[in-house]
Amino acid sequence: MSDKISFSSDYTRVAHPNILKRLTDMGMEQNVGYGTDGYCESAADKIKAACGCPDAEVFFLVGGTQTNQTIIDMLLKPYEGVVAAQTGHIAVHEAGAVEFSGHKVLTLPAEGEETDTDKYGSNVGKISAKDLKNLLVKFYGDDSYEHMVFPGAVYISHPTEYGTLYTKKELQDISAVCREYEIPLFLDGARLGYGLMSKRTDVTLKDIAELADVFYIGGTKVGAMFGEAVVFTKGGKPRHHVPIIKQHGALLAKGWLLGVQFDTLFTDDLYFKISKNAIDMAELLREQLRAKGYKFFLDSPTNQQFIIVEDSKLKEIEPNVGYSFWEKYDDTHTVIRLATDWATTEENIETLMKYL
Amino acid sequence: MSDKISFSSDYTRVAHPNILKRLTDMGMEQNVGYGTDGYCESAADKIKAACGCPDAEVFFLVGGTQTNQTIIDMLLKPYEGVVAAQTGHIAVHEAGAVEFSGHKVLTLPAEGEETDTDKYGSNVGKISAKDLKNLLVKFYGDDSYEHMVFPGAVYISHPTEYGTLYTKKELQDISAVCREYEIPLFLDGARLGYGLMSKRTDVTLKDIAELADVFYIGGTKVGAMFGEAVVFTKGGKPRHHVPIIKQHGALLAKGWLLGVQFDTLFTDDLYFKISKNAIDMAELLREQLRAKGYKFFLDSPTNQQFIIVEDSKLKEIEPNVGYSFWEKYDDTHTVIRLATDWATTEENIETLMKYL
Amino acid sequence: MSDKISFSSDYTRVAHPNILKRLTDMGMEQNVGYGTDGYCESAADKIKAACGCPDAEVFFLVGGTQTNQTIIDMLLKPYEGVVAAQTGHIAVHEAGAVEFSGHKVLTLPAEGEETDTDKYGSNVGKISAKDLKNLLVKFYGDDSYEHMVFPGAVYISHPTEYGTLYTKKELQDISAVCREYEIPLFLDGARLGYGLMSKRTDVTLKDIAELADVFYIGGTKVGAMFGEAVVFTKGGKPRHHVPIIKQHGALLAKGWLLGVQFDTLFTDDLYFKISKNAIDMAELLREQLRAKGYKFFLDSPTNQQFIIVEDSKLKEIEPNVGYSFWEKYDDTHTVIRLATDWATTEENIETLMKYL
Amino acid sequence: MSDKISFSSDYTRVAHPNILKRLTDMGMEQNVGYGTDGYCESAADKIKAACGCPDAEVFFLVGGTQTNQTIIDMLLKPYEGVVAAQTGHIAVHEAGAVEFSGHKVLTLPAEGEETDTDKYGSNVGKISAKDLKNLLVKFYGDDSYEHMVFPGAVYISHPTEYGTLYTKKELQDISAVCREYEIPLFLDGARLGYGLMSKRTDVTLKDIAELADVFYIGGTKVGAMFGEAVVFTKGGKPRHHVPIIKQHGALLAKGWLLGVQFDTLFTDDLYFKISKNAIDMAELLREQLRAKGYKFFLDSPTNQQFIIVEDSKLKEIEPNVGYSFWEKYDDTHTVIRLATDWATTEENIETLMKYL
Repeated sequence: MSDKISFSSDYTRVAHPNILKRLTDMGMEQNVGYGTDGYCESAADKIKAACGCPDAEVFFLVGGTQTNQTIIDMLLKPYEGVVAAQTGHIAVHEAGAVEFSGHKVLTLPAEGEETDTDKYGSNVGKISAKDLKNLLVKFYGDDSYEHMVFPGAVYISHPTEYGTLYTKKELQDISAVCREYEIPLFLDGARLGYGLMSKRTDVTLKDIAELADVFYIGGTKVGAMFGEAVVFTKGGKPRHHVPIIKQHGALLAKGWLLGVQFDTLFTDDLYFKISKNAIDMAELLREQLRAKGYKFFLDSPTNQQFIIVEDSKLKEIEPNVGYSFWEKYDDTHTVIRLATDWATTEENIETLMKYL
Repeated sequence: MSDKISFSSDYTRVAHPNILKRLTDMGMEQNVGYGTDGYCESAADKIKAACGCPDAEVFFLVGGTQTNQTIIDMLLKPYEGVVAAQTGHIAVHEAGAVEFSGHKVLTLPAEGEETDTDKYGSNVGKISAKDLKNLLVKFYGDDSYEHMVFPGAVYISHPTEYGTLYTKKELQDISAVCREYEIPLFLDGARLGYGLMSKRTDVTLKDIAELADVFYIGGTKVGAMFGEAVVFTKGGKPRHHVPIIKQHGALLAKGWLLGVQFDTLFTDDLYFKISKNAIDMAELLREQLRAKGYKFFLDSPTNQQFIIVEDSKLKEIEPNVGYSFWEKYDDTHTVIRLATDWATTEENIETLMKYL
Repeated sequence: MSDKISFSSDYTRVAHPNILKRLTDMGMEQNVGYGTDGYCESAADKIKAACGCPDAEVFFLVGGTQTNQTIIDMLLKPYEGVVAAQTGHIAVHEAGAVEFSGHKVLTLPAEGEETDTDKYGSNVGKISAKDLKNLLVKFYGDDSYEHMVFPGAVYISHPTEYGTLYTKKELQDISAVCREYEIPLFLDGARLGYGLMSKRTDVTLKDIAELADVFYIGGTKVGAMFGEAVVFTKGGKPRHHVPIIKQHGALLAKGWLLGVQFDTLFTDDLYFKISKNAIDMAELLREQLRAKGYKFFLDSPTNQQFIIVEDSKLKEIEPNVGYSFWEKYDDTHTVIRLATDWATTEENIETLMKYL
Repeated sequence: MSDKISFSSDYTRVAHPNILKRLTDMGMEQNVGYGTDGYCESAADKIKAACGCPDAEVFFLVGGTQTNQTIIDMLLKPYEGVVAAQTGHIAVHEAGAVEFSGHKVLTLPAEGEETDTDKYGSNVGKISAKDLKNLLVKFYGDDSYEHMVFPGAVYISHPTEYGTLYTKKELQDISAVCREYEIPLFLDGARLGYGLMSKRTDVTLKDIAELADVFYIGGTKVGAMFGEAVVFTKGGKPRHHVPIIKQHGALLAKGWLLGVQFDTLFTDDLYFKISKNAIDMAELLREQLRAKGYKFFLDSPTNQQFIIVEDSKLKEIEPNVGYSFWEKYDDTHTVIRLATDWATTEENIETLMKYL
């Protein structure tokens, strides 16, 4: 409906054409409800194969906040909270969905810091195994720990809300702390494809399946109309996950809509191919922004790019370009986010750069 | 995927072809998120026009349980409960979603009873204004009412879970009690189209918009892929409905998917036309069942029909016919539900009757 | 402060003199907080001995609703509800405290009925093993049971809110159903002493400790200032009960206040002796009411007696007699409750009868 | 029961003798339940007079966490959170009681900092009006604020958990920000008496009643057996506070126990007199600690004193002295809290110093 070219987010389009075609081709076909259909089964099988974990348990939910809320509630005892980066989506941008279900978000710093190999703060949005361990040591070392919220699970997002990525070593270290303390590691993969296809990652889907206890593969932002595929990697799904999902208002009647979409995305590596497109386009965008002298707010290796723009410039491009306000940088500048996606074209980038 | 002919429910198919075509035609079009797009606005305008209430406030959610949970939570103060038929969906089949958000369901009897004009118990599933009034009188007449859950809203479904319908007079009477006690009347219209198109109703959409304070127009079961259109008829929507919806995990990122669907359904009366088809087919089905001597469990004027079948017969048709188990009738008989929908054809009925 | 003689409830007086004396004698003595003191330990030991279950785990809470809410929340998984009589305190008179913590109360009928040995409806307020079994059979026999609230625990009160009592056989039968389905049986003993000392009971404290998985011994209504002693009879207390109690706002800082009171009540059988007084006085009251021709609403074998009184009579005695409104009987009569307690004297009864 | 001299907390003793005497003197007197008695009324009147706010609404709860949870839940809409210092009791030491009732605690820094007049960090535990204002400006300036938890009330403790105090100017500034944004200011006065009687405060009870919208006067730690007096200073108590309290399991059956205690404490300025004793003793303690060369962790003007002690020393005094572990200072030192109370004597201080 909008005539603007938009880089405001990666959920601006309906869905990959393969998905719409398949749904259309189903015609008047009838299916059973609530995810008990054959499409969901087939999609789950393909995902388990892609993850290299045949014992995994897979089911599908509709959106990200819903998934975070429901899974975290599945993982925690009532008196436990979930540990997350203070910048984590669950800590900031889900309107208190975790607290709504009775749990506290226990936050760790995530400011990022310079490293030997990276001067651009590419750790922002991430927690460290060290900080996590400290929190746990301090908690259990406190005389009055039974008056405090127990750290019952760890939440990380990969890519993070800032587009940054954990290294394999970092994930291994975090995972090791979780196992030492016997608390599950939950990875929010709303943009997982864009993380896996980054040119600067050593983390594979199989690594994630090995290191996390539960994670999800985002569909909404990566080619699907909607949908997130939840993977309990070691099979620790609650015995009755259906009433828990239902109780959260999160059980889709026509569950096969989710099955069909993920079955399509995991056929012929479609999920990875279209994720790669977003990365290629982000690299192109970065190059051109750099060439034009734009200053980056941080160094993101994925599809979200953050630049610092003069407010007067923003006002000028407003009618033609969709972007996402991130935060005020100073009195005359603003940080904005530009996101590529599975469908971004070189032509789109050209149009954008014409205005910028 | 299934080869069976299924009358198990009215949410067995993807969606009306107009909807899929429109979504497909959108191609790579980009839209803004969370229901702030033009499609949602257009759909809301059409719905307000159809309801005859220009001051109404309309927004869209994904599914029925989610809508019931979220709206009821919007209507109630923390110490209030919602009054419902003991057979109501929220009282029985939503896995405690209302209680999950902290509220009690206060139940009224809904057994139905013979009337002068109806010997088949067509009141089952309904509450009466009289019972509602009694509950309220008794509550406020009790010395210790502040130790009890306050009745803070009334929930009715129309059609009910048994396919039955309120008369206009009955709705007026219930509405009058609600207004006397200043508590909102909430109408669950998950199957609203099938109620409005029933050949045995005197209730119009405008009546509902006038008598209920908030209601929803079901899409999931009436032609949409998914989606329920919530109508605050007098404009009493909470000032900040977005964080409430988000907090329930119910805010769809690509909100325009809901807008496009309802905009399509409310163009050229599509919603009413396809609803009428389900009713026509239900009438045909009823005739043929009656002709074959099947005994009805109750007299439903809408698309859900309930018959009593011998268990041996059920076992026989199982491989070819999808139906919905309702309850055991006696040691050798079972009550089953057969539902027609917006897409059921005469041929479908013929196939079904061949097996029955 | 009131000059009236009151039979309105059994929580009208401060506490048994032994308790006040002991608290006073403690003077400036210092104790550690949160129930980790020696008094709580000593009281727990005496209670375990009285129950005949050395492996029990015992702790103390302040009030009845608080205890019901906290213990039920300890027993249930988030998607489970608690089965109770529809007349149960948790179902009616706790302002939705169970729902506040996210759980549904699943109700069973409790109207009572005539039996061979009892024509006065002494079963009102009680559930039956048969009804409980039916609920469980029906639940697990329903195709869509995962869309419903799971019955996760059973709540009974003994004496009930109507003063009635379970027989040993009835408790055994209910307990057997619970064990068959592996759900805990929780007994609300807010007035337990009055049940145990009834002249018409065959149930002992040891029976209750054997048949229930968790129960509490009421102090508030039986001689203490406040306090309820929770007994996990088989030791199944949650590993971390303190944060759960704290999270419910139910952890008393000066926990030893509870310990001292229960230690006193369980020294030299004080709890049983003072309970017996209430029963003796209730028997006396019943005799005299009967002699004066008062009609009983039901046949209660404990300290709560329910009679039907003319409204004009009530108005007349109002200035001098405290009673508890129960319900309207008809247009000109009201059911009232008269409760004796651990301190009621023959003189009190005489004064009451003078007005009645 | 303990032979140790204890400075571990200010809730180690039963209650002021006047209270126990009065309760004892009540004998078999009968009172009506749930705070509707004359003692509660009398106590409320005395408190309103002491606060200088005749329109205030006053009621009584049992403990601090319970009061914080219940009042915050009364103040907030479901999608709102409460702003607090990151060191605040509700943020750290209440086992997630606020989250249990569905709300997030939004934290502000409270590290304290050197000021011109104070080099000892006497601001630790406090929020600043500036930080509060920044949070609110940032929140409402964020494009996606409807996806975040709304700041719906402000919680401060006075004295704080570190014994520090707000100045009148600081309270006025915080209150002004609250009024600008129309969010209530809630003051946790669990140790209010010790704050008001500090030799280094310019804040009076009337100031607090003027500047806060709701606060409570702590009894548990200041002479009562238990109890906190909640004051809605401008009369904004929810219309039905009883069911809200009941729903939280916080309604004491024998409410008059609270009334009698606060009536006693607010007779002849007892509350202030006994509070002053704790301050006098804290000053004496501080002098003597300083004389002995103990290093203070922070400069507290109230009854809680924090010193840094060698671990070997702690081990040595352990058998004879009760103290409260605060946190590890370094590998060989620990921060401990020593609290005086309404009953501490010079002799107690001498005994303590003998061991230290």
